Amino acid sequence: MVNGFHVAVVGATGAVGEQMLKTLQDRDFPISKLTLLSSKRSAGKIVVFKGEEFTVQEATPESFEGVQIALFSAGGSVSKELAPEAVKRGAIVVDNTSAFRMDENTPLVVPEVNEKALFDYNGIIANPNCSTIQMVVALEPVRQAYGLKKIIVSTYQAVSGAGAAAVDELMNQTKAIIDGKEFTPEILPVSADEKKYQIAFNAIPQIDKFQDNGFTFEEMKMINETKKIMGMEDLSVAATCVRLPIATGHSESVFIEVEKEGVTSNDIKTLLASAPGVTLQDNPSEQEYPMPAHSVGKNDVFVGRIRKDLTDDKGFHMWVVSDNLLKGAAWNSVQIAESLVKLGIVK
Amino acid sequence: MVNGFHVAVVGATGAVGEQMLKTLQDRDFPISKLTLLSSKRSAGKIVVFKGEEFTVQEATPESFEGVQIALFSAGGSVSKELAPEAVKRGAIVVDNTSAFRMDENTPLVVPEVNEKALFDYNGIIANPNCSTIQMVVALEPVRQAYGLKKIIVSTYQAVSGAGAAAVDELMNQTKAIIDGKEFTPEILPVSADEKKYQIAFNAIPQIDKFQDNGFTFEEMKMINETKKIMGMEDLSVAATCVRLPIATGHSESVFIEVEKEGVTSNDIKTLLASAPGVTLQDNPSEQEYPMPAHSVGKNDVFVGRIRKDLTDDKGFHMWVVSDNLLKGAAWNSVQIAESLVKLGIVK
Repeated sequence: MVNGFHVAVVGATGAVGEQMLKTLQDRDFPISKLTLLSSKRSAGKIVVFKGEEFTVQEATPESFEGVQIALFSAGGSVSKELAPEAVKRGAIVVDNTSAFRMDENTPLVVPEVNEKALFDYNGIIANPNCSTIQMVVALEPVRQAYGLKKIIVSTYQAVSGAGAAAVDELMNQTKAIIDGKEFTPEILPVSADEKKYQIAFNAIPQIDKFQDNGFTFEEMKMINETKKIMGMEDLSVAATCVRLPIATGHSESVFIEVEKEGVTSNDIKTLLASAPGVTLQDNPSEQEYPMPAHSVGKNDVFVGRIRKDLTDDKGFHMWVVSDNLLKGAAWNSVQIAESLVKLGIVK
Repeated sequence: MVNGFHVAVVGATGAVGEQMLKTLQDRDFPISKLTLLSSKRSAGKIVVFKGEEFTVQEATPESFEGVQIALFSAGGSVSKELAPEAVKRGAIVVDNTSAFRMDENTPLVVPEVNEKALFDYNGIIANPNCSTIQMVVALEPVRQAYGLKKIIVSTYQAVSGAGAAAVDELMNQTKAIIDGKEFTPEILPVSADEKKYQIAFNAIPQIDKFQDNGFTFEEMKMINETKKIMGMEDLSVAATCVRLPIATGHSESVFIEVEKEGVTSNDIKTLLASAPGVTLQDNPSEQEYPMPAHSVGKNDVFVGRIRKDLTDDKGFHMWVVSDNLLKGAAWNSVQIAESLVKLGIVK
């Protein structure tokens, strides 16, 4: 690095890409050259970064010549095709799709949890699923202090996790219902699936496609990614993932069982009050607890409603909220890039 | 009964009262005389029942002279004051508030689960909390067939559970956000608590007041009422209750552990397909699962997403949805009244 790095953002015009650029700018990430890439459809759009106008170009293998750090968030098929091309040309890829997350040669990294796994990179580093990231940030300090046997999570997920078009769908449907007009669901729950359902004033218990075991792919991502990030193949994890009429901010109702006996909810509150990347918001008498509307635009994971189970000495309940576009995607990707610089992996 | 019973509805102008009248009408409940009562504030309003206009009267002890069945849904303080007065005058009270639910001399009844408890009545019969009712309807057949050790539930609750004014607040806030206007939250999460929060496009992890143990009163209702209705003092129950921007229809992500080994998710599906008051909606390959928007106006409890835990042979996950104003309140109350007639307790 002399004046910074040549950084490429793939999917620069998407909901996450936009937040990646904003985060790179807010963090003053050292950039000597910025290349903004997208699908053919969005190529030609103008994007402003630090006051300078950039024309978004169609991503091709040649786009990555000279790129040192490539942040991908343009869908799994784009990553599968172009991430290896970027690596071939010397770039380190931070990939925000599910394409390489479970690949055994690809580290899956949340810096607060397993930053050192970056040293094992083979060109590509995977950014976990949004719902997984905020949960492991909240639980890793507990795991380190008291051990972890079991996680059961129910999610309350915002539509922006399905992209900017899904946010438009929520807003348009909501307006139609208020105005007493007809509407036709077109995107949610899964754009590639046959049936579409109303999301406004509704709850849809399907995120991503169903797997043969009855869990959705989103639920299996949470289960498998959590085990991989924490390095605990035998951890018992279960998830129910639900899409809600919220634009941004994922919430999670999390039950855990720790290994150690006699832990109190105050022990866990004390631990999380000083945990990296966590803001503790837990004061019931003052009605203080995390909420998605208050998490928007913030990088931290907010944790509250921590309480011990009434019958299980090792059981605890908590409520975990984060901006799914930031810690769940853009901020975690940029944070990985910052770690790559800090650890001297990219130079 | 000659031509029917003298029925009083207390809280006739509220969100639940309105549904009680609609349900009495739809079910053609045998009514010889109908007395509609309310607080002083709502007295004088005109309500139409089966084409006939009724003037709502202020509820006083004397209002209950000659009343045989009194359906109460006007808040706990009204029930505490007037339910004993109604009983003194010979009425059987079906009370939809939390005033008498945990009283050991008051049966707490969900007809599909413990209809026979009605024989133990001492004038008052309590209707359980909305979130409790739909859960026990879904779980009782499982408990009877395979035993039940543990329940962990996370709720996705509609604002109509907090009354008609809360629905107005959701709609007005939503419109303000869409129109880019300012607004001030005034009712939710708890009208008697100091702080009010935005509900539109948000999730509030507080329903009812916090208790000293860190659980809310709504969560403790689910825990204690479930044990009482199922007659299982030692059942392990935990709840996290969350208010969402949905007008009507409560959803629940439920984890259970059964006693018996080797039960399959198909066993549970088969059981629930013919369970009383349950509609099974569970076909992932066709994207069939329950959703609140599809439950509105229906009396049944909808169950889907039934799947076995990936590590716990006795663990199962499911998704339970119902119209909180109907099975959660009005329909269960009227159903209790129907049971009282059927069992010859009122005659």
